[in-house]
Amino acid sequence: MAKIKGDKPLVAILTGSPNDLPQVEKAKGVLDDLGVPSEIRVLSAHRTPDLTVEYVRRAEKDGVECFIACAGMANHLAGTVAAHTLLPVIGVPLTGGLMEGLDALLSTVQMPPGIPVAAVAVDGTRNAGFLAAHILSIKYPEVGESLAKARMEGRKRYETA
Amino acid sequence: MAKIKGDKPLVAILTGSPNDLPQVEKAKGVLDDLGVPSEIRVLSAHRTPDLTVEYVRRAEKDGVECFIACAGMANHLAGTVAAHTLLPVIGVPLTGGLMEGLDALLSTVQMPPGIPVAAVAVDGTRNAGFLAAHILSIKYPEVGESLAKARMEGRKRYETA
Amino acid sequence: MAKIKGDKPLVAILTGSPNDLPQVEKAKGVLDDLGVPSEIRVLSAHRTPDLTVEYVRRAEKDGVECFIACAGMANHLAGTVAAHTLLPVIGVPLTGGLMEGLDALLSTVQMPPGIPVAAVAVDGTRNAGFLAAHILSIKYPEVGESLAKARMEGRKRYETA
Amino acid sequence: MAKIKGDKPLVAILTGSPNDLPQVEKAKGVLDDLGVPSEIRVLSAHRTPDLTVEYVRRAEKDGVECFIACAGMANHLAGTVAAHTLLPVIGVPLTGGLMEGLDALLSTVQMPPGIPVAAVAVDGTRNAGFLAAHILSIKYPEVGESLAKARMEGRKRYETA
Amino acid sequence: MAKIKGDKPLVAILTGSPNDLPQVEKAKGVLDDLGVPSEIRVLSAHRTPDLTVEYVRRAEKDGVECFIACAGMANHLAGTVAAHTLLPVIGVPLTGGLMEGLDALLSTVQMPPGIPVAAVAVDGTRNAGFLAAHILSIKYPEVGESLAKARMEGRKRYETA
Amino acid sequence: MAKIKGDKPLVAILTGSPNDLPQVEKAKGVLDDLGVPSEIRVLSAHRTPDLTVEYVRRAEKDGVECFIACAGMANHLAGTVAAHTLLPVIGVPLTGGLMEGLDALLSTVQMPPGIPVAAVAVDGTRNAGFLAAHILSIKYPEVGESLAKARMEGRKRYETA
Amino acid sequence: MAKIKGDKPLVAILTGSPNDLPQVEKAKGVLDDLGVPSEIRVLSAHRTPDLTVEYVRRAEKDGVECFIACAGMANHLAGTVAAHTLLPVIGVPLTGGLMEGLDALLSTVQMPPGIPVAAVAVDGTRNAGFLAAHILSIKYPEVGESLAKARMEGRKRYETA
Amino acid sequence: MAKIKGDKPLVAILTGSPNDLPQVEKAKGVLDDLGVPSEIRVLSAHRTPDLTVEYVRRAEKDGVECFIACAGMANHLAGTVAAHTLLPVIGVPLTGGLMEGLDALLSTVQMPPGIPVAAVAVDGTRNAGFLAAHILSIKYPEVGESLAKARMEGRKRYETA
Repeated sequence: MAKIKGDKPLVAILTGSPNDLPQVEKAKGVLDDLGVPSEIRVLSAHRTPDLTVEYVRRAEKDGVECFIACAGMANHLAGTVAAHTLLPVIGVPLTGGLMEGLDALLSTVQMPPGIPVAAVAVDGTRNAGFLAAHILSIKYPEVGESLAKARMEGRKRYETA
Repeated sequence: MAKIKGDKPLVAILTGSPNDLPQVEKAKGVLDDLGVPSEIRVLSAHRTPDLTVEYVRRAEKDGVECFIACAGMANHLAGTVAAHTLLPVIGVPLTGGLMEGLDALLSTVQMPPGIPVAAVAVDGTRNAGFLAAHILSIKYPEVGESLAKARMEGRKRYETA
Repeated sequence: MAKIKGDKPLVAILTGSPNDLPQVEKAKGVLDDLGVPSEIRVLSAHRTPDLTVEYVRRAEKDGVECFIACAGMANHLAGTVAAHTLLPVIGVPLTGGLMEGLDALLSTVQMPPGIPVAAVAVDGTRNAGFLAAHILSIKYPEVGESLAKARMEGRKRYETA
Repeated sequence: MAKIKGDKPLVAILTGSPNDLPQVEKAKGVLDDLGVPSEIRVLSAHRTPDLTVEYVRRAEKDGVECFIACAGMANHLAGTVAAHTLLPVIGVPLTGGLMEGLDALLSTVQMPPGIPVAAVAVDGTRNAGFLAAHILSIKYPEVGESLAKARMEGRKRYETA
Repeated sequence: MAKIKGDKPLVAILTGSPNDLPQVEKAKGVLDDLGVPSEIRVLSAHRTPDLTVEYVRRAEKDGVECFIACAGMANHLAGTVAAHTLLPVIGVPLTGGLMEGLDALLSTVQMPPGIPVAAVAVDGTRNAGFLAAHILSIKYPEVGESLAKARMEGRKRYETA
Repeated sequence: MAKIKGDKPLVAILTGSPNDLPQVEKAKGVLDDLGVPSEIRVLSAHRTPDLTVEYVRRAEKDGVECFIACAGMANHLAGTVAAHTLLPVIGVPLTGGLMEGLDALLSTVQMPPGIPVAAVAVDGTRNAGFLAAHILSIKYPEVGESLAKARMEGRKRYETA
Repeated sequence: MAKIKGDKPLVAILTGSPNDLPQVEKAKGVLDDLGVPSEIRVLSAHRTPDLTVEYVRRAEKDGVECFIACAGMANHLAGTVAAHTLLPVIGVPLTGGLMEGLDALLSTVQMPPGIPVAAVAVDGTRNAGFLAAHILSIKYPEVGESLAKARMEGRKRYETA
Repeated sequence: MAKIKGDKPLVAILTGSPNDLPQVEKAKGVLDDLGVPSEIRVLSAHRTPDLTVEYVRRAEKDGVECFIACAGMANHLAGTVAAHTLLPVIGVPLTGGLMEGLDALLSTVQMPPGIPVAAVAVDGTRNAGFLAAHILSIKYPEVGESLAKARMEGRKRYETA
């Protein structure tokens, strides 16, 4: 795959709990495969609210261009990130709450006008990685090339089935 | 009714949107009737996150002993307040989101361990006022007296029906 | 942690069924850790309605200042307690009913005006313990100190992650 | 229609709020048409818990053989009645809560083993009246005759359509 | 326990599928314990519609005074029985459908006016047995005595807890 | 449009209540436009169960080749028809029940294996008419021609928009 | 059972993912038992949209008279097929999405007027096979005979129970 | 506000029905205010599937860098667009289906891995406009400036409240 030059993370992946790391690492896996540098941080909107805000501001200065925020229950993390940045924010609702993620999905997506969060499906960490790549591809043609290859490969499995 | 001495607000009532003021004033109305001083502030977890945190910290120093946070959609306001104080926080989910308040209820109540929010029913601003009074009554006996009178009056309407 | 003097229970934890004791003991565990004396009672709004009312009245005289009522299905227990006391009542909906606790949550939280129940999340017994402590902390500063320590410890795990 | 002798009410119809009287009177209307004497009382499981229990005990002694309990939100009324009698109890969930009656339905129907409530549909006051009549018909043949006539009339409207 | 004289079944318990027999036998178990004779039949509203109607008519002539109809998915069985009898019909929604019994509950309870079904909770076969006994107790005092004993025993377990 | 020869109805449209006729007539309207003869009957699975079965059997002998059954609440009508015929049965859930038609949809579609009902959307009477035509078109080419024309017209409105 | 002459598939069964093949083969199994030739294809509305359209057009020319489209999550497959054919299309929602198939059911059934999909229950692949046979039976009497035999056998198991 | 040079649309806004135009124009209004050129097209995944695919391919060649697809019921439009492009696709679920948009939300967001759709809230056309701008801002700094101004203005209304 084509690879973006340098290794400074372009995508910051946040998660509200260390327990969710295995799920969250799938987003990073997709971005690795597509040649997009990223980093994961465990930060909680409720337990470490000040740290979260600080990180968002610093990441933006350090060159991050897209956030992915993963959280279950009432997913307040994506909204907290979106409240402190103008970069695109992808929210991933995780299972674990009362309505098996539907609560987290609505908590992620129902933002006030002017502060949007781009939601993917519940536990959709892989598609969050892809979505970040689609967004970056409008600026980085090499990411678009990686995406084109990946989609073609997905198609092949059907044609030979 | 018995009245708490002084007029410094003991209860701070926050709401995420000016549109919700008529609904939110019902909480203040109940507290006024019970002789508990309170104040209302319009603050948004997403539009004015820094102002919200500042207000919570200052209110605590100014003598507030209980918060009521009202918001619809994904109610992030109560959680944001609870993340920045050790005082009891009552969350009021408001209608307006996709599931007519059920989403806001789940967004209010599903907090991580150690950072609880006390939820009342959707649009339950009146009961939020009563709940704040019940909480304060463990410290202020005059509030307990007001509550006892109010309950007896509620009962009378049934006995004479 | 700071500890409240004496060992008379300040919090009464009620549960509708002996089967729920393991879940309910988590509330007591939190309160023990925070130095707040409490006791657990198995009482049913439907099987032992008279005993329940008697207990609530006696507990109030014996110095209890906050109730926690845990029940699944149609959680009528918290409402029954709230109908017979002016002390703050925390309701914990338990899983087990048709909607995996959503039914119990709505049954807990949807009280008539003037008789509020403070709901926490489904199976939120731990947060019910914390909420009781936050409420008591407005009267007992030593409980506030315990809560401050507990929150700081929760934060540390993130900072070192 | 056949009519039961005497005019002592055989069915006691309880409702949690005076606002619900127009809805609740439909149950009485059906019973009147079928010749079954009944009476309506406004009693609240939360506002007048002691009065409710007293009434249930007295009604039983006065010859009532079936209860109908109507309430919205968290319908605790039917359960409270069932906890204090061995007579059959019909619960009618009323609209008004968050889930438009589904919450009240689950709150009505999900009773612990040994203390059943017979639920009808949300706002099903008319069918509650019919159900009470079907139950009484096993003891009072004249009620069975009234029911047979009523059903035949319902059928006719289709045959002539 | 007191026992009704004779052994002709007073309660007919129908189930839509042989797979549900273990669940359905709980209703019979409760009735056996209370001294009420009953019988179970496997009959389907969709596979054996004519047999079902025939059985309902014959059972009524043979002395049955109350029906219990258990079925999952779209519970059409209780409605089919109710359409062909004037005796009280108890419907038991069983799990197995898309909404884990909520669908069957609504399918059971939402009957047209004049043709009521008395619903118990999902998989509430035990309470269906109790409800049938409560209904019969208005005619058979010995069933009322059995119910009084059973309830007292249920209470004892709490008092000694 | 092409028209099927003769005027004996090929599609029988049943509805559970005269109130639903305006909704149900939309199915007939679509079939009229496509040149497929049909007839409407008001028949209730619960009020006129025997008439319903008789009609289904007679209609089949009289040349009907497809049934459309419309009903709200617990839609038992489509299942009752399917239980008595081997012809394809289309079920239309109507709004009116507790879950605004979702209950009727599940009650329509969740049939036991071997007795399928083809469900369309809630209040989908127009598409029920189209579906009946698609089914008949495999035997009657003139119906296929009508459908082809109708679809092309639907497309044109977009192309000129 | 009676068998349709020739072995060219009359029913085309499409599925959106190879993982669903075990579930999907049940539809083919039913059709095999009823003597109706069919074939299964793995095609995705999102991964292989062009292949899917091509297949639908070719299948129609090759003699297919009915489509069955199975997919989970947001079931777009049935709608895609229906958009490109005038033959009857049966949609089977599969479990796997957030609402355990309810989402897929609504995604299957809520089609715009004029482009109907005939939905069966979630994971209702067997009934999709039966429904296809009921549809074909209006043209192929031998399929009707197979269906009559199958239904009688289903009934026998009840009569001997 | 800063304005992007040229007037070739960077954002293509698609809607499944002419009826939704008033709702959809809000997305364009937001983009106009932010100085981002866009165009609206009415295209249906089911009525005009071929036209839709053609438009997506041509728009991409003509310089569009982001799609917004709005549709109700089963929102298949966003998925259809995503299946034919590598550009970022924002899906807006519209009310109108059975679950008041929840169905359309799940139909929008539950895409297979590798073909993501970025969902906003139901009827969230305004936030879809903002989200498109946030995405474009990573490439066009002038859009970022417009967004910064818009957010500051939103904040001011709170500070002066």
